[in-house]
Amino acid sequence: MSSKRMIYLPLGGAGEIGMNAYVYGYGAPDQERLILVDLGVTFPDMDGTPGVDLIFPDMSWLIERRDRLDAIFITHAHEDHVGAIAHFWERLGAPVYARAFTANIARRKMDEHGHSEKSVKTVSAWPETVQAGPFTVGFLPISHSIPESSALVIDGPEGRVIHTGDFKLDETPVVGEPFDPELWAEVAKPSVKALVCDSTNVFSRHPGRSEASVGPEIETLVASAPGMVCATTFASNVARVKTLAEAGQRAGRSIVLLGRAMRRMIEAAIETGVLADFPKVVSPEDARAIPRENLMLLVTGSQGERRAASAQLARGKYNGLELKEGDMFLFSSKTIPGNERGVIRIINQLSEKGVDVVDESAGGHYHVSGHANRPDLEAMQDLVKPQMVIPMHGEHRHLREHVKLTQSKGRAAALAVNGTMLNLSGNRPEVVEYIETGRTYLDGSVQVGALDGIIRDRIRMALNGHITVTVILDEDDEPLGAPWCDLMGLPETGRSHAPLVDVLEEDLGQFLGRASEKTLGDDDKLETDLKRIARNSAQTEIGKKPEVTVVISRLS
Amino acid sequence: MSSKRMIYLPLGGAGEIGMNAYVYGYGAPDQERLILVDLGVTFPDMDGTPGVDLIFPDMSWLIERRDRLDAIFITHAHEDHVGAIAHFWERLGAPVYARAFTANIARRKMDEHGHSEKSVKTVSAWPETVQAGPFTVGFLPISHSIPESSALVIDGPEGRVIHTGDFKLDETPVVGEPFDPELWAEVAKPSVKALVCDSTNVFSRHPGRSEASVGPEIETLVASAPGMVCATTFASNVARVKTLAEAGQRAGRSIVLLGRAMRRMIEAAIETGVLADFPKVVSPEDARAIPRENLMLLVTGSQGERRAASAQLARGKYNGLELKEGDMFLFSSKTIPGNERGVIRIINQLSEKGVDVVDESAGGHYHVSGHANRPDLEAMQDLVKPQMVIPMHGEHRHLREHVKLTQSKGRAAALAVNGTMLNLSGNRPEVVEYIETGRTYLDGSVQVGALDGIIRDRIRMALNGHITVTVILDEDDEPLGAPWCDLMGLPETGRSHAPLVDVLEEDLGQFLGRASEKTLGDDDKLETDLKRIARNSAQTEIGKKPEVTVVISRLS
Repeated sequence: MSSKRMIYLPLGGAGEIGMNAYVYGYGAPDQERLILVDLGVTFPDMDGTPGVDLIFPDMSWLIERRDRLDAIFITHAHEDHVGAIAHFWERLGAPVYARAFTANIARRKMDEHGHSEKSVKTVSAWPETVQAGPFTVGFLPISHSIPESSALVIDGPEGRVIHTGDFKLDETPVVGEPFDPELWAEVAKPSVKALVCDSTNVFSRHPGRSEASVGPEIETLVASAPGMVCATTFASNVARVKTLAEAGQRAGRSIVLLGRAMRRMIEAAIETGVLADFPKVVSPEDARAIPRENLMLLVTGSQGERRAASAQLARGKYNGLELKEGDMFLFSSKTIPGNERGVIRIINQLSEKGVDVVDESAGGHYHVSGHANRPDLEAMQDLVKPQMVIPMHGEHRHLREHVKLTQSKGRAAALAVNGTMLNLSGNRPEVVEYIETGRTYLDGSVQVGALDGIIRDRIRMALNGHITVTVILDEDDEPLGAPWCDLMGLPETGRSHAPLVDVLEEDLGQFLGRASEKTLGDDDKLETDLKRIARNSAQTEIGKKPEVTVVISRLS
Repeated sequence: MSSKRMIYLPLGGAGEIGMNAYVYGYGAPDQERLILVDLGVTFPDMDGTPGVDLIFPDMSWLIERRDRLDAIFITHAHEDHVGAIAHFWERLGAPVYARAFTANIARRKMDEHGHSEKSVKTVSAWPETVQAGPFTVGFLPISHSIPESSALVIDGPEGRVIHTGDFKLDETPVVGEPFDPELWAEVAKPSVKALVCDSTNVFSRHPGRSEASVGPEIETLVASAPGMVCATTFASNVARVKTLAEAGQRAGRSIVLLGRAMRRMIEAAIETGVLADFPKVVSPEDARAIPRENLMLLVTGSQGERRAASAQLARGKYNGLELKEGDMFLFSSKTIPGNERGVIRIINQLSEKGVDVVDESAGGHYHVSGHANRPDLEAMQDLVKPQMVIPMHGEHRHLREHVKLTQSKGRAAALAVNGTMLNLSGNRPEVVEYIETGRTYLDGSVQVGALDGIIRDRIRMALNGHITVTVILDEDDEPLGAPWCDLMGLPETGRSHAPLVDVLEEDLGQFLGRASEKTLGDDDKLETDLKRIARNSAQTEIGKKPEVTVVISRLS
């Protein structure tokens, strides 16, 4: 088959929420010219990725085909869409396109990695377009929880594809462009082949609420607070930060921004003209001289992150500021599943300080989601009338539900998780190939493969503890002295009440005393045997089998 | 001060949800005769307690005063109330009292630890009482999410205290005694000094719903399912298991119980006469011959536990049974905060199999809480009219809110977290002392202290990886060959692209070559220096500082 085709291939973000990376291509099979949409990260956790700093999609497939990659487009500046760009840009070697605010954030990342700021090119909103190989791509404004979010209008020889990016249908978004159904209808008019669509909130059955809806309740709340008010939200939700700041200002409070991300985002929004009339802020130093009932802190760390401003304030001071009895702490945010423990820890620490915590559980509405709910997804399909819908940006359950929803409306759809290459050329999406995909971990300064076994070994040490067994053999393969054990992460005594290290050394010493010449002369066999004995001895003594490192030194 | 006093001292469960253990005492200060109410566990997690099997309250204070301990009372058979009993019973040396169902579960635990079944004594419900030192204690039936939950009526020389245990106000609990407001009013009539009260749902603003309310919706759901139905809930929620089984039976399905806890709980409920008319169950073996549309599985693992039946079914087969496209999986449960990741993992795995997952998010009501909501807590106070309320069974935020609620009703209250000894003798609770409390970990077969540093070391290895550095010195303190490194949980190469182990050995070798005689002759100094160099070298190479074990062998 040599006829050309239009392909879609998610390398990240389909079958998970996070690390978005979607490839589109057009051309003869295996010779398609390619573009990449988004290049984001996922955040690690202690359960599966202890010590890891960031998680990236495995980009090997695209790196191997970099000669066919014409451009990278970033839909918006959330970390799960832009966070990996600077880590892969050199190896991908294609220009990066984004709108001004997103480009500003992307350039800061490039700069931190020593890449030229010219690596990121600013594009204006639709109808401006970029030519990238066989594709003409435009940034179509759409509302979300960060400024200048855009869908991509991807025009190719086989028609128009709309990649929604993350979105909600918000006609009063506080900051940035309102959702414009007329503009969208106009763009969709020439017929849309495929809508590749955000699936995050497909299980939310009510129409989404506008960002503007939270303002009045926040204002009432802040106005009634007797002490200092501290509020947290996603730093990138510039509209929310503005709403909070204005509520503070109207209550006669001075605004303090705490946390690097909070300052950085507001700075980027002002620099790029997205945010024009943000209330005046005071520095933490100046804030110390202001009576607490006249202060409003806007802080990072709505997800309970241990090092963020909110966690530090919950534990003690931050930048010389401290919360006290009678102050109020507002979570203008939703806890992302998996982050509950960290958030609850903060709430309890604040409770210990006598701070009144307000969140959604109090019955008020201080947060709205940035993603389209189920009825909004239907409205989007009704507006765009695509030939087919490819759900993305969701776990398997979300994609599956979104496919079902689409099919119930009589439209073609495909459930394409990471690595599923679809041919969009026909009347319905067809799976043409499964590509091996995966995850890459940034661990310290090194990128390691998720399947390298490195993190697996760390998890095992965390679960089981670690024993180092040292044996020295002389020129004749005779043990020189007794074996030596060092323990880490293990109890000092077990069942026999003798020191565990003594019990292990005794058992290993007995084995060495009985070991055959053949065993003593064979490093691999000796190591295997010593490991087994150390593990069994520990199992008897303390009821668990530690990880064991055996060090055999031979004098010669 | 030598006058006698009535004391209350939580050793676990106050300032957290889990590992309940409450001490009451009466007598001259420091000579009080004591009783213990409940002795439960908390479950570990990878974040803070990797590899730990169970978490207990630190019982040292009570063990040191065991000669003053007259009895242990268990309010109900949930693990956070009874789970630690067999681990501490020998060291506490007091008789254990519980009602029949709870006693049945407690005895199984005692039996597993080789303790006599006679260690647990069965007590009938109020008005039967037990004499324990200066106290007369009775089990007052109260509704909860497990059979035979009871409040304790603790009568002492200074009056009556009611310890609610976990409870809800449910007059139609499906299994077990309905909440009986008349009985409670009668017990409260002689005046109640203190109500020591469950705080779990103090933030839930609506009155709680009855267990009976979920039956009809579950029945409708099961009746409409085309394939196999699999439902999970807490195994100990015998009423729910019954409701689910009956819904299956009415839909003409054979019932299969999967998971040890599920079978054990139903067995205990039948043995003790709590459960009389449970539908007939079939074995997994027999179930294989039954068409899937005629089967209903009731399985453990509603919290996403990796080894439970639900997780195994989500991954593949369990006892020869397998879920397939078109089957339904019902979570008749709520996800406890912190367990979201595990539950979501299962839902996505089921989605991959094409199984339809139903949980609360679908809009139906398939679960109710077992704890009293805020209005129910108020109703309880209005009924009992205690002189004072001591909130328990809650995190700090719950206790604080419960204190506020109580005070708003014009009643005395105290926020007493673990270790806070209250004197209840006066008109209001008074803090008399702070006792050092904490946690003990069951790690394999050994109990270790939470502050021993063992788990901290394991967490550090998980975050940073581990290096073993081996150095051999001869009789003259001269290094014999080069130092040797073994890595675990670390990448093979870093910045220089040379093997990390080579870089480390090179840097350590250079140091050894330059080291002074004094350093080479001093094990402590040599170890400190080698650690520092290995960590710094790794930091440069891979951007993280591993944990290091240094093994120095001296030939002599």
